Amino acid sequence: MQENASKSTLKRLPFYLDVLKKKKKNGEEYVSSSQIAKELNLNDVQVRKDLATASKLGGKPKVGYEINELISDINTYLGCNRIDKAVLVGVGSLGKALLGYKGFLEYGLEIVAAFDNYPSVIGDEIKGIKVFSMDKLALSIKENNIKIGIITVPASAAQKICDQLVDAGCKAIWNFAPTKLNVPLDVVIQNENMASSLAILSRHLNNKK
Amino acid sequence: MQENASKSTLKRLPFYLDVLKKKKKNGEEYVSSSQIAKELNLNDVQVRKDLATASKLGGKPKVGYEINELISDINTYLGCNRIDKAVLVGVGSLGKALLGYKGFLEYGLEIVAAFDNYPSVIGDEIKGIKVFSMDKLALSIKENNIKIGIITVPASAAQKICDQLVDAGCKAIWNFAPTKLNVPLDVVIQNENMASSLAILSRHLNNKK
Repeated sequence: MQENASKSTLKRLPFYLDVLKKKKKNGEEYVSSSQIAKELNLNDVQVRKDLATASKLGGKPKVGYEINELISDINTYLGCNRIDKAVLVGVGSLGKALLGYKGFLEYGLEIVAAFDNYPSVIGDEIKGIKVFSMDKLALSIKENNIKIGIITVPASAAQKICDQLVDAGCKAIWNFAPTKLNVPLDVVIQNENMASSLAILSRHLNNKK
Repeated sequence: MQENASKSTLKRLPFYLDVLKKKKKNGEEYVSSSQIAKELNLNDVQVRKDLATASKLGGKPKVGYEINELISDINTYLGCNRIDKAVLVGVGSLGKALLGYKGFLEYGLEIVAAFDNYPSVIGDEIKGIKVFSMDKLALSIKENNIKIGIITVPASAAQKICDQLVDAGCKAIWNFAPTKLNVPLDVVIQNENMASSLAILSRHLNNKK
């Protein structure tokens, strides 16, 4: 991967943004790394290191970081000011749920089209997003220069769909299918495994009985 | 935490289940740890260690594990044979999406009620799940002996809601709000941070330009 920041740093940056926006809303102008660290139960040194990845802004002695500039730097670094277009494959229950979720735009993601094999959903429109048949997938990705593919098909079909997305030009895959997928080295994959999360919660409850 | 398995083991077990179910569907009866390891790009020793956590079944030399029994043992260990009841707080766009998702039942989770402050959604029914006002939350959790709380409110309100869920008796919190939450030691929290996932995908695309 070309990334100069670790995945853990990238995962923490949205939390910093959240704290910074809250403080801005409260009328605060400056924040220290130790204040951020305290709010998020993190280590002060870690916070300073993470912030240095995303921003050239140094914390000034005694006053700390300028909140407005830090928000802008992190937004730019994460690409939040930009809207990335994505396609979604698999218009089942989970796919429909994600198509109906309007919060992605806030995070800079716009789902522009959905694809499925089932004749019963092809041609449907879900919250303004049209569902096309699978044979339109590759052309749609190429013509619209789409780089993000969202997979919400059953686990057994996920690798095949993933290959099609990558072959058509996707460089980032957001996988909601409960299975491990293989992608080329220049493609990033992010797994959202609800089954794994539920396993952790359920096992914890099991142990308490 | 009371758990005797690491979070990483718990996260991998649903993937093993997935592989085992696929093999069962193909009519296979036995599987070796190295076959599972290969399918998931994992280490053989790791797989054997994980399986030993969930099952007393040993892999027999040459033939491997009995697929049927291993599926049953992992299901029991993870509590997948049991349905855990949950409440959801925050009936916005994401909350509605999750209420509409029927796949949770497969993983052993049933959302039995939803809660919100907005008069416009209170009394609504979303895919059969009724939305109640927040002042009914604590009693509902206690009366129905609910142990799992799902948080889909904005980040700024999440800690307050989390405290209410824990005070009412929840021992497991599934947090979809993009913020870090504090819980007592005997409560497990699982964060589902879409903003963090999108940050990783978006940054990767950013680096390619």
